[in-house]
Amino acid sequence: MGTITDMEYYFTERIAHDRALIEDYLSKSFSAEARHADLQEAMEYSLLAGGKRIRPVLTLETCRLCGGRPETALPFACAVEMVHTYSLIHDDLPAMDDDNLRRGRPTNHVVYGEATAILAGDALLTAAFEQLTRADLPASQIVEAVKCLSQAAGSAGMVGGQALDMAGEGQALDREELELLQSLKTGAIISAAAELGCIAAGSNEEARLRVRTYAQSLGRAFQIRDDMLDVISSQEELGKPVGSDQMNKKSTFVTALGLDGCASQVEQLTRRGIEALGDFADPSFHIWLAQQLARRSK
Amino acid sequence: MGTITDMEYYFTERIAHDRALIEDYLSKSFSAEARHADLQEAMEYSLLAGGKRIRPVLTLETCRLCGGRPETALPFACAVEMVHTYSLIHDDLPAMDDDNLRRGRPTNHVVYGEATAILAGDALLTAAFEQLTRADLPASQIVEAVKCLSQAAGSAGMVGGQALDMAGEGQALDREELELLQSLKTGAIISAAAELGCIAAGSNEEARLRVRTYAQSLGRAFQIRDDMLDVISSQEELGKPVGSDQMNKKSTFVTALGLDGCASQVEQLTRRGIEALGDFADPSFHIWLAQQLARRSK
Repeated sequence: MGTITDMEYYFTERIAHDRALIEDYLSKSFSAEARHADLQEAMEYSLLAGGKRIRPVLTLETCRLCGGRPETALPFACAVEMVHTYSLIHDDLPAMDDDNLRRGRPTNHVVYGEATAILAGDALLTAAFEQLTRADLPASQIVEAVKCLSQAAGSAGMVGGQALDMAGEGQALDREELELLQSLKTGAIISAAAELGCIAAGSNEEARLRVRTYAQSLGRAFQIRDDMLDVISSQEELGKPVGSDQMNKKSTFVTALGLDGCASQVEQLTRRGIEALGDFADPSFHIWLAQQLARRSK
Repeated sequence: MGTITDMEYYFTERIAHDRALIEDYLSKSFSAEARHADLQEAMEYSLLAGGKRIRPVLTLETCRLCGGRPETALPFACAVEMVHTYSLIHDDLPAMDDDNLRRGRPTNHVVYGEATAILAGDALLTAAFEQLTRADLPASQIVEAVKCLSQAAGSAGMVGGQALDMAGEGQALDREELELLQSLKTGAIISAAAELGCIAAGSNEEARLRVRTYAQSLGRAFQIRDDMLDVISSQEELGKPVGSDQMNKKSTFVTALGLDGCASQVEQLTRRGIEALGDFADPSFHIWLAQQLARRSK
């Protein structure tokens, strides 16, 4: 048991160190760049609002997993977080999910107005691609990163998933429809986050495929756990109204599989993800992360 | 006079040929890519709505000006048009300029609803960066293109200009404020369009600087002419309500300089732009284009 506690401590410290790198890089990435103070403030309001930073941590740690130095992947990691943040700002808009709270704070458009929120999202998405070019890596790897992130974020990925989500509101989706929707809406970017770590490390296609399998399993487990928490958590713990999915009449994995069915799916997916890591020299952090996310209570 | 007529004819044919290349490339760039039919349709509705295609023509022709083959610049050219189109969709939204007509047709959100219009814009912006990676060019030139387009489109460029524009609504802006606003909102992308042609041709920094001077002058003249046309054109000719800027209480170059002041500015800027082209082997098309835009009646 002593060993487990030490490992827990070690990984918790490591993730804290990754997060500090990410926060530091993000907070420096916009110094006086925007030509309008409100726009700059709105971008920073959402980008520097904390959050778990799971995606950029996954980029840094996957770079390490593939034998690279995590620091070289920082611009890629922060680009992913910018894409994630822009998607939250736009998803929260009145014309979309119309949410007023995010991470326990008023959403971007509530504070800055709709116009600035739309522009802040647009600017963050654009800034993400600029960030990719700042990596101190060979041009071929940067081009690969632009390809990876744009495909994951666009109409064949995240935005396509959000469009399906909007179209499915108020309709009962079956499990397959839900899985497609979520694999696009949240899975594609989680997978891209991990793959960008591979790209930064310059690893081969086979390693990238295994990382993709891991990340896709992780992403699906993450979303199912999210739907479970929406039902079982309290408002204070989650920072958004409990059961908001239910109020919006959204189909979720809980409505499709039930809570027990969800729990067993999360377990299966986590196992499958961990198995895909078999051939890496030291996949212990990724194993730990998958288990942490599967068991998280917020 | 015979020579002038022949040249007119030659350039008109050449621009028609460029446009055909662009239309063909754009219409093929999305075959069944989006995961939701409405999203795909909304993207195509605005992207394939015709328009003058000035920006992508400028990319192709500047590639030729710099000694490259225009075809190699096609992915860059179409990326610029996607960024331009996304910006129109978002600018027309109710929370922004709230326009119902664009190029004589109902705006995107009027046809597809606000949510899909926001997503179609997001997806086009994302697709633009994916397009850049499809160019058959060395990776270093593609990275340069990503840098150029992201800087021009983001918070320090076009989006920053739109934020200034929203903030300035209902306020009287002086000439300097207007020039800053427009150099960001429309000038940055016009300049990027031309510079991407240089990048595709692999030209040196000095050529790029001259092209930037030309494009910035062209962009400023274009915007001033646009403001003039808003006042002097009829609704049918322009496809949007006459004097809509005035109704929105927007400051324009006409309110700042008067119609005569505008006309003399357009002439000066066009001359300055043309002068910057002096050292190129054959700048005749760019000279003709600048004159065409300065005199256009729609």
